[in-house]
Amino acid sequence: MRVSRRSFIGGLSAAAVGGVVRGQPGPRVDAAALRQRIDELSVFGRPAGGSFANGVSRVAYSDADLAGRKYVMNLMTAAGLQPRVDAAGNIYGRRAGASATAPPILFGSHIDSVPSGGNFDGDLGSLAALGAVEACERAGIRTRHPLEIVVWSAEEGVAFGRGLAGSRIVAGDIAPADLEQVWNSMTRADAIRRIGGAPDRIMEAVRAKGAIHGYFELHIEQGGTLEKAGIPIGVVEGIVSIQRYRALITGLANHAGTTPMAERQDALLAASRLTLAVREAVMSKPGRQVGTVGQLEVQPNAPNVIPGKVTMTIELRDLSPDTLASLAAEIRGRAASIARTSSTTIEVTSLGGNPPALASPDMQRIIERAAATTGLGATRLPSGAGHDAQMIAQLCPMGMIFVPSVGGISHSPRELTRWEDCANGANVLLDAVLQLDKT
Amino acid sequence: MRVSRRSFIGGLSAAAVGGVVRGQPGPRVDAAALRQRIDELSVFGRPAGGSFANGVSRVAYSDADLAGRKYVMNLMTAAGLQPRVDAAGNIYGRRAGASATAPPILFGSHIDSVPSGGNFDGDLGSLAALGAVEACERAGIRTRHPLEIVVWSAEEGVAFGRGLAGSRIVAGDIAPADLEQVWNSMTRADAIRRIGGAPDRIMEAVRAKGAIHGYFELHIEQGGTLEKAGIPIGVVEGIVSIQRYRALITGLANHAGTTPMAERQDALLAASRLTLAVREAVMSKPGRQVGTVGQLEVQPNAPNVIPGKVTMTIELRDLSPDTLASLAAEIRGRAASIARTSSTTIEVTSLGGNPPALASPDMQRIIERAAATTGLGATRLPSGAGHDAQMIAQLCPMGMIFVPSVGGISHSPRELTRWEDCANGANVLLDAVLQLDKT
Repeated sequence: MRVSRRSFIGGLSAAAVGGVVRGQPGPRVDAAALRQRIDELSVFGRPAGGSFANGVSRVAYSDADLAGRKYVMNLMTAAGLQPRVDAAGNIYGRRAGASATAPPILFGSHIDSVPSGGNFDGDLGSLAALGAVEACERAGIRTRHPLEIVVWSAEEGVAFGRGLAGSRIVAGDIAPADLEQVWNSMTRADAIRRIGGAPDRIMEAVRAKGAIHGYFELHIEQGGTLEKAGIPIGVVEGIVSIQRYRALITGLANHAGTTPMAERQDALLAASRLTLAVREAVMSKPGRQVGTVGQLEVQPNAPNVIPGKVTMTIELRDLSPDTLASLAAEIRGRAASIARTSSTTIEVTSLGGNPPALASPDMQRIIERAAATTGLGATRLPSGAGHDAQMIAQLCPMGMIFVPSVGGISHSPRELTRWEDCANGANVLLDAVLQLDKT
Repeated sequence: MRVSRRSFIGGLSAAAVGGVVRGQPGPRVDAAALRQRIDELSVFGRPAGGSFANGVSRVAYSDADLAGRKYVMNLMTAAGLQPRVDAAGNIYGRRAGASATAPPILFGSHIDSVPSGGNFDGDLGSLAALGAVEACERAGIRTRHPLEIVVWSAEEGVAFGRGLAGSRIVAGDIAPADLEQVWNSMTRADAIRRIGGAPDRIMEAVRAKGAIHGYFELHIEQGGTLEKAGIPIGVVEGIVSIQRYRALITGLANHAGTTPMAERQDALLAASRLTLAVREAVMSKPGRQVGTVGQLEVQPNAPNVIPGKVTMTIELRDLSPDTLASLAAEIRGRAASIARTSSTTIEVTSLGGNPPALASPDMQRIIERAAATTGLGATRLPSGAGHDAQMIAQLCPMGMIFVPSVGGISHSPRELTRWEDCANGANVLLDAVLQLDKT
């Protein structure tokens, strides 16, 4: 019998975690195996012989990605999980549950990387998921729900310029035209075919709402909050909404020698004021919202010409769409005032964005209890970065576990999560899965 | 007998312009011919059939430049001046004077343009010089000094990235390595050869100090001062010194979603503050100095990455090297303070520049009297733009005449100087040449 969202919540509040005693050790993920596998996987995407200086470049659909996927599928096979590649190129491995009808509990992450990226982003969550299933097997635990682990394809927004490709398709966010996109002289259809997917039957990868009991993802924080606070486990409240805007500032390109200061219509000067205004607006309210001007282009961009045109991006992130809307309104107001006082025009256009993806309150509570059971401190925090979990949150209750990133650095060869934190995160994932199984 | 600088100045103060009566008309340049020739020359560098929308593109050494040069040389031949191309590709035309030993009075400008430039920058001064010689011929005036007109080659800094090429060489500012520079798949030597110069004998183009009695150049203002003031003639005090700097701002590229606002080391934010600081520093003192941030590049320049590195140019211009030095010091101070408060480093490096080139006081007075003789109001002003005159000022007394630019616009298809102002400038040039001849 399918567990409805209603009964799931009701069940949790009553007796969901009734069998768990605080501090009592349950089954454990094999920390040594996890470490070894993270090391072994990092080989795919580094130059032969292996300098770490440039990090791991395992861009989706590349030869390194193919090799990494093969490595993980071999591990899954050895663990008795028959890996299955769906039409979108996602890799699933399933362990049957006691109930023939209960929907599966899904957990995992991705293994593709940005160019010159790190060794933990995605890899940890993917390999910890396998470790959690192996731990159940070792402990002889038979869950009621099937356990399904997943390695999502193409999470990073490198190939085809849009991230979360595999999980996006599973959530039904795919249009036929997307398959014709070209990147690196390859259509998206060919790229999906290259990793074993079936673009002609792409809709078969879509999963129905309610067909998954719940989704967990363990991931490195990619920010410095946990490390600074000395807290080993982060309970993600949700993945922030991202809203992007383009500002086009039009002044008048003119001679840098013959145009008096008072008569200039300098587009870069106005852009500089707007860059400062974005930060001021974002920081004028309490909260964890962020705003970034990351891209800026000047025309004609010559030392001896007053800039006539500037285009720049403005990116805003927060869990609350209301906060983002009021920030955007304030920035538009400041832009209008800057345009007036600088004799320029400023046009701010929305480039769209993602809505926030909230973790379900029940899943957050399960993770908190799992941390407590494992004897670890935990704190709630938003995820400023995007994750596959944000797509799967459209299909079922979602929960995310963060572990500390040293220095808050990621997407960099300097990305690092301590082995102890990796193991802690894997154990909390395992415990959370087992607790969810009881609901 | 060569007239020394000393006797030149002494002579002027006593009786230089004794023969001229204010308001009494002397010979006049043929305004209709001047207008027709400016129109005809503008054909070279416009698309066949002739839309004006993209202006004139007569970049030095291009086919259009070759055609324009041929057009002007044909005019010179028709006027009885045998055109001579020197080793640097400059075009000279000489009319003998009564004295066999007096050094020539030199006057002219250039006819190359920036891409999509205007129709008056350089062209006016070149064609007015020819018109002035023709007027002397028509009026049967025999000057004591030879009259030499010149069309300097490659004034604009488009080809080989450095302006004032022909006049620079004449002033001796040329190194053998310069001839090996490549632009548009062509060495500078080949480019000079292409316009009839002789790179193998390039030093023959250099002229000795004192070998020229004085140099005049008529040019459009390229700024809006004269038009705004309603004054038809500008007497240039000098060509400003230009000093260029590169600022390299180093922060830390980081994730735009996971890095809290307070922990950012945002290079673009610091660059924006520095851009505003340059303007504030320049405007904090009275005077006509200008400062421009015209070029700015962001790394990695992605909407979702906090900028880690920015390079930008800072250009300062003024007649006074002291003013420029104190401005540069103030900007360096402000940069250091911005670096401290934004957790970045800012390195400001000099890219060099030009010293100021002052017009000789005597030449300025001659131009003022020529304007008065012609019945025109005049005002003194600096030139914020570079001109060939700044190089020739190293060889002999230099004077420049400006005429109004509508809206102060130049280096643009919208560049415009009214025909009446063109004729006025040509007549003041003619009168100034004749007055200088009497010294």
